[in-house]
Amino acid sequence: MTTSISSLADVTALLADLPGPDRAAADSWAAREPQLTKPAGSLGRLEEISAWMAAWQGRHPPRLDNPRARVFAGNHGVAALGVSAFPPEVTVQMVANFRHGGAAINQLCRTFGIELQVAALDLDRPTADFTQAPAMGEAEFIAAFAAGMASVPADTDLLVLGEMGIGNTTPAAAIPMALYGGDAAFWVGRGTGIDEPGLARKAEVVAAGTARHRGQPPLEILRRLGGRELAAIAGAVLAARLGRIPVLLDGYVCTAAAAPLEAARPGALDHCLVAHASAEPGHRRLMEKLGKAPLLDLGMRLGEASGAALAVGLVRAALACHTGMATFAEAGVSDKD
Amino acid sequence: MTTSISSLADVTALLADLPGPDRAAADSWAAREPQLTKPAGSLGRLEEISAWMAAWQGRHPPRLDNPRARVFAGNHGVAALGVSAFPPEVTVQMVANFRHGGAAINQLCRTFGIELQVAALDLDRPTADFTQAPAMGEAEFIAAFAAGMASVPADTDLLVLGEMGIGNTTPAAAIPMALYGGDAAFWVGRGTGIDEPGLARKAEVVAAGTARHRGQPPLEILRRLGGRELAAIAGAVLAARLGRIPVLLDGYVCTAAAAPLEAARPGALDHCLVAHASAEPGHRRLMEKLGKAPLLDLGMRLGEASGAALAVGLVRAALACHTGMATFAEAGVSDKD
Repeated sequence: MTTSISSLADVTALLADLPGPDRAAADSWAAREPQLTKPAGSLGRLEEISAWMAAWQGRHPPRLDNPRARVFAGNHGVAALGVSAFPPEVTVQMVANFRHGGAAINQLCRTFGIELQVAALDLDRPTADFTQAPAMGEAEFIAAFAAGMASVPADTDLLVLGEMGIGNTTPAAAIPMALYGGDAAFWVGRGTGIDEPGLARKAEVVAAGTARHRGQPPLEILRRLGGRELAAIAGAVLAARLGRIPVLLDGYVCTAAAAPLEAARPGALDHCLVAHASAEPGHRRLMEKLGKAPLLDLGMRLGEASGAALAVGLVRAALACHTGMATFAEAGVSDKD
Repeated sequence: MTTSISSLADVTALLADLPGPDRAAADSWAAREPQLTKPAGSLGRLEEISAWMAAWQGRHPPRLDNPRARVFAGNHGVAALGVSAFPPEVTVQMVANFRHGGAAINQLCRTFGIELQVAALDLDRPTADFTQAPAMGEAEFIAAFAAGMASVPADTDLLVLGEMGIGNTTPAAAIPMALYGGDAAFWVGRGTGIDEPGLARKAEVVAAGTARHRGQPPLEILRRLGGRELAAIAGAVLAARLGRIPVLLDGYVCTAAAAPLEAARPGALDHCLVAHASAEPGHRRLMEKLGKAPLLDLGMRLGEASGAALAVGLVRAALACHTGMATFAEAGVSDKD
């Protein structure tokens, strides 16, 4: 997208004027769906998905020609505090793995016909330790947010978002704690598989960070407790909204990155579905705060947009049914009495 | 499959000697999976799916070259008792719709690359009203069961099962009630969308049928309270087991059709996953009895193998990850400390 931003105030201004769902496309969906050869409502959430795609793409029938996945990678000052089971150098190693096609997200994008781009955001310059200072200065935050915005081509018809960053379930827990309250134990989880002492350390880090930065407005919380990949995700979510592109959010980190937009402007995530429930317990709690029900619940906790890419299969199926099924009249099938 | 049966005793004999999972393929899966570039367990049930495919196909890596969907259609004596929101002629109309490619299952099979065959089982000859007599005589039952067995080519590498039959959520409720007890209200639901008086009638029909036929052995329950499409599903499940083919069961009717096999021979459904949780409340109760957790939970209640076909997308994704991902060594990624 070409919208340019240079400050938090610019982001706030964009949030003040968001397009809504397209009424004409929604009406066309609602006129066709009950005529299809099935009992009303019997495709469950597949019906919700095709309706959502029509309303947010602003066209009927909705299409899926250009689904694009964007995975943002960042490094974190808090990783030095022993909050992850993996060492920080894994972030750059995994970015190389994405580029060579060896990661889960590569296989999933190939399976469901999704274009994938990975953006490594200053991996050699971790954010500041948020227990001591804001994770990012305003210019750093805006640069990452703008990189996210710029990553979304206008012809995208479904945006699939995800992240990679050793240590980033720590900011993912700190952001909802700062936005919604509760204690650190309520929001932290084992991430990539940290042990019991590590989990206790992680809760202390999250508690210290939110104690330092709580009471700030939502976008400030994202800047102070987030990370570059989280800022970029928020930017991509906003750019998608401005460009009428539906979004599939991945797991805990991705949803936490988007949450400040909703806190800043209720309804800002109406064009987003949460693709799956992460095994990370805070994710379910965060979704409740956002009023979102996940499409999939498979105990996944990988990130990389893996859950969101998997849900693209559901979107393909939903559109195929809405668009391709015969009507009762076409098929000569008797409708309900 | 070429195994021929001519009596219930033949089915019982086949059930007595079922192949188990392949240990060598399972071991090969277990040797590769922890080497892949992700935290252990982070793909959740996708890992369970690829392990299950390897063990039941008896090969590593597991493949998905020939997934086949089989949809069986039947008509029911109980449909005349006002247990459905749709008239019985819809069964034959929907079979025509399947054959012309206009139904949901056609779109789903196309989306996920699944071959589809539909078998209409004596639609002009509904089963007997099970409140008055056994739904099928032994010869009728065996013919339908054998049709199901014969529908599974040996090269099938994943079998997707489903059904169509106006009135068939009534036998679907009667079978688990006869197998496991509980009252009719616990097992019946609204099916295609019956109203309140219809639901009460349906519960009475189910209670009357189970009162007449309860206490019989499991395969007799399937014969007396089932229908031709349910018998065919049970036959296809058994043939798949004998031929080392993993099976995705669809919703309530499909799972109820398979349940008598498990009741007759514990472990008989170990090669089956239940693809999704139907919106029909009895389905979740039945899955609990069988110890099965659904892969998807999207509020669907269409039948036609629609939920099972949708889950093929998950299977494709699971195999792509297990087979295509790089190992830590290949990608030069540091493993957990």
